[in-house]
Amino acid sequence: MQNKTIKILGIDPGYGRLGIAVIEKNGSHNKETLLHSECFTTEGDIYDRLTEIGSRIKATIEQYKPDILAMETLFITKNQKTAMHVAEVRGIIAYEARLHGMPITEYSPPQIKAAVTGNGASDKSSIIKMVPLLIKIDATTKRHDDEYDAIAVALTCSAHHR
Amino acid sequence: MQNKTIKILGIDPGYGRLGIAVIEKNGSHNKETLLHSECFTTEGDIYDRLTEIGSRIKATIEQYKPDILAMETLFITKNQKTAMHVAEVRGIIAYEARLHGMPITEYSPPQIKAAVTGNGASDKSSIIKMVPLLIKIDATTKRHDDEYDAIAVALTCSAHHR
Repeated sequence: MQNKTIKILGIDPGYGRLGIAVIEKNGSHNKETLLHSECFTTEGDIYDRLTEIGSRIKATIEQYKPDILAMETLFITKNQKTAMHVAEVRGIIAYEARLHGMPITEYSPPQIKAAVTGNGASDKSSIIKMVPLLIKIDATTKRHDDEYDAIAVALTCSAHHR
Repeated sequence: MQNKTIKILGIDPGYGRLGIAVIEKNGSHNKETLLHSECFTTEGDIYDRLTEIGSRIKATIEQYKPDILAMETLFITKNQKTAMHVAEVRGIIAYEARLHGMPITEYSPPQIKAAVTGNGASDKSSIIKMVPLLIKIDATTKRHDDEYDAIAVALTCSAHHR
């Protein structure tokens, strides 16, 4: 993918709050531009949430036509019910990506931290500090952590394609 | 839903083998007919499998136009990775069902065993013995357990609508 402009869809999966980001990397100068980011929130029963999320991802893919999906791997928690619902969300996102012919990459939290902050063991807040130093972001807009995390996973994918 | 004919899509979720069944219950005499059943198998990487499963479910819904989805709840196992992939499959199936306007019901293994065998603590083999006594099945075809389980969850849903 060298010397080619690629668009990356970055996702921080969740069923209450879903981080979505689309970045573009210009292959000639290896610089990323943020095309879109949001923290998509859902309410109601889990099936309504899943459907809203799938429809939102589909619309985002159709609007921005990203070349690849980069998704944060599931962190196994003690709360298995929560983890199961996040896995349901991940399945739907992967499904929509594949239906649109996109390859899928996954990065673990330590991989994302290492790519964005240089330290795989750094804390969450350092991602929020580093992201605006790596990609131009409108500083006047308040963003949720999940949105920064989605940008961070997209940047991680971009770094792995350098 | 009394005195109305309803079609139930029963699913035993899995990513290597997926049990799919469609039964029709005639509301006037409360008798179920098997319209379709299969054990759908997938191979290859997990994303290929997820996409094949979603596409197969979509095609089944469009062919048989079921009124409701009945799915077996996820049995939490020690193998969390397997459980996560099954949850990804469940998410995609629920997503396709909702996109087609179907309500979704879930039944736990003890609920299914209780509905089909009369005993929530009975073993798996008793489901395979009981299913052909409850619904007319072509006895000449060899079926996989997952196919029987899909029929069993559909029959459980039917019993709850009596």
